[in-house]
Amino acid sequence: MEELSRTYLETLKEEIATQQDNRLQVRFAELHPADIAETLNRLDEEEVQYLWKLIDIETRGDVLIELEEDVRESLLAQLTNHEIATEVLEQIDSDDAADVVSELPEDRAQQVIEQLDNADREDLLTLLRYPEGTAGALMGTELIRVELDWTVSHAIREMRRQAEDVDTVHSVYVVNAAGQLIGRLSLKRLLLTATSTRSTIGDLFKEDDTRAVKVDEPDVTVVQLMKKYDLVALPVVDDHNRLLGRITVDDVLDLMEEEAEKDYQLASGLSDDVESDDALWDMTRARLPWLLIGLFGGLAGAYVIGAFDIARFPSMALFIPLIAAMGGNVGVQSAAIVVQGLAAGRSPRDARLVPRLLKELSVALLNGTICAVVILGASTALGYSWNLSLTVSLALIVVIIFAALFGTFVPLTLDRFKIDPALATGPFITTANDIIGLIIYFEIGVLMAA
Amino acid sequence: MEELSRTYLETLKEEIATQQDNRLQVRFAELHPADIAETLNRLDEEEVQYLWKLIDIETRGDVLIELEEDVRESLLAQLTNHEIATEVLEQIDSDDAADVVSELPEDRAQQVIEQLDNADREDLLTLLRYPEGTAGALMGTELIRVELDWTVSHAIREMRRQAEDVDTVHSVYVVNAAGQLIGRLSLKRLLLTATSTRSTIGDLFKEDDTRAVKVDEPDVTVVQLMKKYDLVALPVVDDHNRLLGRITVDDVLDLMEEEAEKDYQLASGLSDDVESDDALWDMTRARLPWLLIGLFGGLAGAYVIGAFDIARFPSMALFIPLIAAMGGNVGVQSAAIVVQGLAAGRSPRDARLVPRLLKELSVALLNGTICAVVILGASTALGYSWNLSLTVSLALIVVIIFAALFGTFVPLTLDRFKIDPALATGPFITTANDIIGLIIYFEIGVLMAA
Repeated sequence: MEELSRTYLETLKEEIATQQDNRLQVRFAELHPADIAETLNRLDEEEVQYLWKLIDIETRGDVLIELEEDVRESLLAQLTNHEIATEVLEQIDSDDAADVVSELPEDRAQQVIEQLDNADREDLLTLLRYPEGTAGALMGTELIRVELDWTVSHAIREMRRQAEDVDTVHSVYVVNAAGQLIGRLSLKRLLLTATSTRSTIGDLFKEDDTRAVKVDEPDVTVVQLMKKYDLVALPVVDDHNRLLGRITVDDVLDLMEEEAEKDYQLASGLSDDVESDDALWDMTRARLPWLLIGLFGGLAGAYVIGAFDIARFPSMALFIPLIAAMGGNVGVQSAAIVVQGLAAGRSPRDARLVPRLLKELSVALLNGTICAVVILGASTALGYSWNLSLTVSLALIVVIIFAALFGTFVPLTLDRFKIDPALATGPFITTANDIIGLIIYFEIGVLMAA
Repeated sequence: MEELSRTYLETLKEEIATQQDNRLQVRFAELHPADIAETLNRLDEEEVQYLWKLIDIETRGDVLIELEEDVRESLLAQLTNHEIATEVLEQIDSDDAADVVSELPEDRAQQVIEQLDNADREDLLTLLRYPEGTAGALMGTELIRVELDWTVSHAIREMRRQAEDVDTVHSVYVVNAAGQLIGRLSLKRLLLTATSTRSTIGDLFKEDDTRAVKVDEPDVTVVQLMKKYDLVALPVVDDHNRLLGRITVDDVLDLMEEEAEKDYQLASGLSDDVESDDALWDMTRARLPWLLIGLFGGLAGAYVIGAFDIARFPSMALFIPLIAAMGGNVGVQSAAIVVQGLAAGRSPRDARLVPRLLKELSVALLNGTICAVVILGASTALGYSWNLSLTVSLALIVVIIFAALFGTFVPLTLDRFKIDPALATGPFITTANDIIGLIIYFEIGVLMAA
């Protein structure tokens, strides 16, 4: 579907206002759930509620999970517990159901879960127990499993039965009698290998791909495995290698995007996921934290400059912006390299700190020297005094080295204490480096003047 | 495979030095191509060349495409044209083959292509013709197609034949006699639907999913479609809806990651994809451009401050860092929201500029007012003069509003001229806002003093 045009939305609003239910039902019957959701996201709360009842009952759940969070929240608030259980949760994959339930207020979640049939309730309660950020929290239980010693024809009968609950069959998992994962059987091999009536799954199956993830492993491991091995689904097992569920690539795609957006937002000083059509106050609030940190950093800067007698050396004021900006820039660059390396799994968490700081030191020395030479040449050429130019050059080398080491050290240390290292690319490093840069500049200025 | 341990690499290097070929062959026979590549990435050029010959010939191509670019380049330089053609290109998917060939020097690429057999050469030349950044450049030609009026048993025979060239069967595409895409048939339906010997594909198939992308559409459209509809493969068609190839989700994952990294790097002032184990000079060079821009921005700042008679109002120097930092921060925040919206396809490219700037203006007014009140209170409380405090407050509102509008306007304009809008989150906006912020501050300072 193309971008939602203004005229399309106006027609729709008109049809809702005039209650042309048949026409609306026909419209929606032709659309993919993701397209219906995209439409609902652009309508008012009352319009969404009105249209909800006109969506095919088997599609409602898939539409709901594609809605934007605030639209979904206001819609869920209007549905009865029974409706949420039967129209939504029982119709969608268990991993999506767990996501929907965890967005509900706690007592409401309890009531909704009680409305589910036994099997779904059991599944959901198990999934909800896995902490956020683990493979278990990403996994769904819908999968097709066959046993190693089944005949192919028995397996196909079983698969037909199981497949009713499974939307997309990514893989058929082969387990032994104890439920332990032995491997994966591609539908391709099952379909395209000529078999006799007495062939078993074991005959067809080569034990070539038993890649799986433990249920309590972190979700970054899931992302890394799926990317590295180009998987579309990854089985999840317990400590005894028993098959518990599977994670599909579309969830990993969403996760990757969220992580990338979060890092990007932190690096750009936004404290929340904002979009340009969010409410005025949401947009303002997402930007305020960095601005306030910046303000207090600025006040600290004013204190530093005030402590130094600027009236005695007013020409030193000229290069304040240069020194402050360079400290911030270098710090963010160094921190970003660390954060990106950690996110991509390229920087092993056990890498030793000292060699990395030494390397960073060399890079900073090189960059600092180049910048210092450039500024020394440029500022003397522009007619600034030799003393001032030399002060700025020396300060610049020291600031660049300090900022690079600080920018490397902070995210690595945050990561060691299991705090999101991307925080280090945000306001803290920039502001800290600005101020420390100024102190270095004025200290050197005083020394040079002495 | 777990992270490559130091001892593992040392054992390997020892085995290479003592030419224990059998042992090395056994090691590699058990590994996934991605794991072999990960190992080779950590070895010296000569070691890589030595090991290459010990890798199973059918696996070599898959290993090569997983190598880091510089390792691949140096390995390709050592292989003959015939080896590249037969051991690499003919063994891997056509989309990967096209990627490898486009990395070769032009005359070398020509020579390698001549070594290919006719069918592969034809395929490759067609793929190479699609410009980078389009669906065609992402697509591979390996797919399974069946015709609408084939019987199921004929289709399965045909699929067995076609499947020899296709590693992973994502979907079976259904075409009419003219080769036009009619839809997709899931292996699940084919395998799990009971059929009579006279059933045709048309009987099995419901025309429910004909989502495809045109070969010349931009790759961002591909990413958006696959994400939105949770697809693992997307068929590619020409203007007459004839099926040309397919794009798989793993390529989209790679593309998403590259785009996110690029935006992140620009926002953090890195001009190139650097990792902490890159060479010293590469790391230095990736950071220099922003630093140099920052330097010249700093010199411009010095000029602005010098043009204003700082010695007459030395206390104005105190708040230089605050004003400069806030202009840069606000500009980057505004630009980042625009860039992220464009990247996620949330901001339609035809959205009107004026309403967005008006909204940004409101957000900036609100943020600016809050910041101005905070700073007015804080700086008078800290004992700075009322006149100075008021100057800083007023300047801050103006700077925040200007920076927000500038930060919104620049990326949108870059995008309109088809320049990567993420450039606007980098050094340019920050530096420009720093300087303009200083000018605003001093102009207001002069007015207040008058």
